[in-house]
Amino acid sequence: MSQTPDSAVRAYIEQHGAAFLDDLAEWLRIPSVSAQPEHDADVRRSADWLAAELARTGFPTAEVWETPGAPAVFAEWPAGDPEAPTVLVYGHHDVQPAAREDGWDSDPFEPVVRENRLYARGAADDKGQVFFHTLGVRAHLAATGRTAPAVHLKLLVEGEEESGSPHFRALVEEHADRLAADVVIVSDTGMWSEDTPTVCTGMRGLVECGIVLHGPDQDIHSGAFGGAVPNPATVVARLVAALHDEHARVAIPGFYDGVVELDAHERRLWAELPFDEEGWLREAHSHATEGETGHTTLERVWARPTAEVNGIGGGYQGPGSKTIVPSSAMVKLSFRLVAGQEPDHIEKAVRAWATERIPAGIRAEITFLPATRPCLTPLDHPALQSLVRAMGRAFEGPVRFTRSGGSGPAADLQDVLGAPVLFLGISVPSDGWHAPNEKVELDLLLKGVETSAYLWGDLAENWRRAP
Amino acid sequence: MSQTPDSAVRAYIEQHGAAFLDDLAEWLRIPSVSAQPEHDADVRRSADWLAAELARTGFPTAEVWETPGAPAVFAEWPAGDPEAPTVLVYGHHDVQPAAREDGWDSDPFEPVVRENRLYARGAADDKGQVFFHTLGVRAHLAATGRTAPAVHLKLLVEGEEESGSPHFRALVEEHADRLAADVVIVSDTGMWSEDTPTVCTGMRGLVECGIVLHGPDQDIHSGAFGGAVPNPATVVARLVAALHDEHARVAIPGFYDGVVELDAHERRLWAELPFDEEGWLREAHSHATEGETGHTTLERVWARPTAEVNGIGGGYQGPGSKTIVPSSAMVKLSFRLVAGQEPDHIEKAVRAWATERIPAGIRAEITFLPATRPCLTPLDHPALQSLVRAMGRAFEGPVRFTRSGGSGPAADLQDVLGAPVLFLGISVPSDGWHAPNEKVELDLLLKGVETSAYLWGDLAENWRRAP
Repeated sequence: MSQTPDSAVRAYIEQHGAAFLDDLAEWLRIPSVSAQPEHDADVRRSADWLAAELARTGFPTAEVWETPGAPAVFAEWPAGDPEAPTVLVYGHHDVQPAAREDGWDSDPFEPVVRENRLYARGAADDKGQVFFHTLGVRAHLAATGRTAPAVHLKLLVEGEEESGSPHFRALVEEHADRLAADVVIVSDTGMWSEDTPTVCTGMRGLVECGIVLHGPDQDIHSGAFGGAVPNPATVVARLVAALHDEHARVAIPGFYDGVVELDAHERRLWAELPFDEEGWLREAHSHATEGETGHTTLERVWARPTAEVNGIGGGYQGPGSKTIVPSSAMVKLSFRLVAGQEPDHIEKAVRAWATERIPAGIRAEITFLPATRPCLTPLDHPALQSLVRAMGRAFEGPVRFTRSGGSGPAADLQDVLGAPVLFLGISVPSDGWHAPNEKVELDLLLKGVETSAYLWGDLAENWRRAP
Repeated sequence: MSQTPDSAVRAYIEQHGAAFLDDLAEWLRIPSVSAQPEHDADVRRSADWLAAELARTGFPTAEVWETPGAPAVFAEWPAGDPEAPTVLVYGHHDVQPAAREDGWDSDPFEPVVRENRLYARGAADDKGQVFFHTLGVRAHLAATGRTAPAVHLKLLVEGEEESGSPHFRALVEEHADRLAADVVIVSDTGMWSEDTPTVCTGMRGLVECGIVLHGPDQDIHSGAFGGAVPNPATVVARLVAALHDEHARVAIPGFYDGVVELDAHERRLWAELPFDEEGWLREAHSHATEGETGHTTLERVWARPTAEVNGIGGGYQGPGSKTIVPSSAMVKLSFRLVAGQEPDHIEKAVRAWATERIPAGIRAEITFLPATRPCLTPLDHPALQSLVRAMGRAFEGPVRFTRSGGSGPAADLQDVLGAPVLFLGISVPSDGWHAPNEKVELDLLLKGVETSAYLWGDLAENWRRAP
C-alpha cells in the first residue's frame, strides 16, 4: 500500500513548525474562559480567531455557530473523491479559569516555552490538540501533492466544554445534516505517557441520580422522638450501603444487563501497560486501591461499570452537636456505564431498587440528570486500525490501547450522528489539565501534527465507510 | 400519719395567689435570653431579681453565684430539725429567644392572662415552675405553723440551661459541699396532660460522637478514579447502616451491657396511659412509627437506648451535579442511654466498633462530646412515693408515671451529689416550650404550688435519708 512519504511530512513540519507555534501562541493569548461571564467576549473572540485561522489553513468553509451560550466553530474541507469517507474532528476552544496567583510560574495567558514545553492555559486542553490538525492537514496536502484532503474533513470546536457542554447536544442535533460523518475523531484526550503512545478506544457513560428523602416535617428532638420514627439520614445511608455487594459489584438488580465484558485479548494488552500503582495512587490523591473483585485497577476504571456517591447530606453538619432527627437527607449518586448498558434501563433499575427500600413514613424524590452513553470502538475496527498505524508512524514505535473512565460529549456525537468515535490525543498526565502551569510537550504536539498528517490518507485508503 | 391540712394550704394559696402571679409577671418581664449576648445584662438582672425575691420569701441565704457565663442563684433554708432530709430544687432562670414577629399574639416579655392561661416566654420553661416553690414553701409554713421548712431546703437556679448548661457541672462541682442533698427535685419538666397528672421517674443519658472520615487528599474525578479507591461517603454510610440490626436494635457489641430492663409492672402502668399514637405522630411531625422490635412507642423513647444520626455529610450537596469521589465525609451520632449504661463503656464500644469498620485508605477521626448519664428513680423509692402522694393530694386523683426520652443537667446533680433525682413538673405538651405563645395553665401552676406545699412535710415524715 502506498503511504504518504514520512520524510516529506516531517520536512514540512520542520519548515512550518515555528510559524505554527507562533499562531498557536496567539490563540492561547485569548483567555476564552467559558465559566466566567467576564470572559464571554474573549470566548467569542477565540471562536472568531479560530474560524479565520481555519479559513487561512485552507478550509473552504469556516463558520462560527451560535448557541444559547458560547459560540462553536465549524469548518469543512471536502475531499477530492466524493466517495471518500467523512471524518468529523471534535475539540473545544474554551479553557478552564486560570490566574497567576493560583500558583502559575508565568502568566497563564502569555504563552512561554521552557525546556521544550509550551506553558499556557489551554496548551493541552484543548487548543493545542485542536490546533495540531491545522498543520497536520497542510502537511498531508504538501507531502501528497493534493489540493484537497483524502477524506471529507469536518471540524467542530465547541466553546462550552469546560462548562459542561450545556448546549452541545442541541447544537449537534440542529446541525446533524452538516455534521454527518462516518467516523468522529476526538482530540481532547491524552495518552499513557511520553514513552508510551496509546489510542483511547472508549469512554464510560454516565447516569446521575439525586435522591432526596423526607422524614419529619421539621427537624425533631432526638431525645423525645429518636428511636421511634424513621430517620431519613439513616435511610439514605442504608441505600448507599446497599449499593454494592461483598464483591464490590453494584447490587442493583439488572444493573449489569447487556454489559460488554472485556475480552481476554484486550485484558492481556492492558496488563502489559507499564502500570505503576504507587504513581496512580499519587495521581488519585488516595491511600489505597479497592474495587470489584477479580479486576485490576485499570479494568475497574476503564472497563467496569460503577456506582459512586458524589455527595451525601442531611441534618446538622456544623461544629458541636444538635440532637435532632433530621427532617430530610439527600444523596447524589453517579453510575459509570460501559458498552452495552442503556441509560434508560439503568435509570429504571435504580428507581425501582431505591423505591422498594424506602420505609413507611419516608417520602422519596428521585431525579435523574440527562445521561451520557458509553462509547467503545472495537480494537479491530478498520478506522481504529488506521489511527493506530498513523500514530505508529509518527511515534516510530508500537501503539498501545487505553480507555477513559470518564464520560464526555463525544457520546452525543456518537448518538446523534451514529458514527463510531476514535480518540486522538497526545497529551500526557503531567500536562496539568485544569491545574496551574498547564503545558504541552512540544515534541508530542508535533507528533500530533504528524499523526494527523498520516491519518487522512490511511483512512481513505484502507477504510470504506459502512454502506 | 399526720398531714398538712389541705384546706389550710388551699386557703393560703387562694389568699396569696394574685400577688404571686403579679410577682411572677414581674420576673417574666425580664428578657433573660442566655443565648443572645445583647441580653447578658437581662440574665444578670433576672438572677438578682430572683435572689431578692427568695430572700423576701424567707430564705435566710439567697446568693447570686458567678460562672464564666451567666450567673446562677442559690438559696438555702435550713429545717428546724437538724436530722431532716436535705432537698435540692433545680430549675433555671434563663429563657429561649422570643420575638413578637415569630408568631406571638402578644409581646413575649409582657405577660398577659387569656382564658386562665398566662402567656409569656418562660411562663412554663422554666420561671413559672421555679416560682411555684416560693409560694409553696410559704403555704407549707403557714398551714403547719412552722417557722422553718420540714426539710433542709436548697434551690439552685441556673442561668444557662437554654444555652446547653456549659458551666453547670463545674459550678456544681465547685459548690458540691453547699449543694449536698439527699434528694434532688427537678422542676423543669412536664406531665402527661391536663387530665393526667404524672411524675417523671427518669431521663435518658446521652453520648454524642462525631466521626470524620478522610479518603483522597482532595475531591477526585469519579470517572478517572471512581470504583478503584475507597469513597469516604460510602464508608460513612456503611457505618450508619451497620448501626442497627434487623430488629432495630443497636448492633454495636457491648452496647446493651448493664441495661436495666423495664419491669412488667411499670410496663403495664405505661400501657394504661391514654396514649394516642396519631397525636404523638403529629407532635413528632412524623408520618410513621418504627423502632426496636417488641417495644411500644413509649417504651422506645422512655426505656430503650437508641442510636440516632443527627447529621451526615460529604462531597457535593449543591444543585446539579459534581462527579467526584469526595475527599471526606462525616457523621454525627447520638446515643441515648438508659439506667445501667455507662457513658465510658459506650464510648469505648462505639470507637472499637467504628474503627474496625474503616477500610484501608480511609483515616478516621472519632471524637466524643462530654456525656450525660441516665437517671432513674425506682417506683418504690420512698422519696418518689412522697412526691406521688403530694401530687395526688394537689390534683385530688391518681398520679401516674412517665419518663423523659431526653437528657439533661439533672444528671450532673445526680453524679456529683450522689443523690436520686425526682421530677416535679406541671407543664403540659401544649405549653409551647421554645415556641411562640408559650404559656402556663394557671390552674396547673397553682397545683404546682400546692404539691410543693405538701411535699416537704411528707418527705420529712416518711423518708429518712440513707445513712
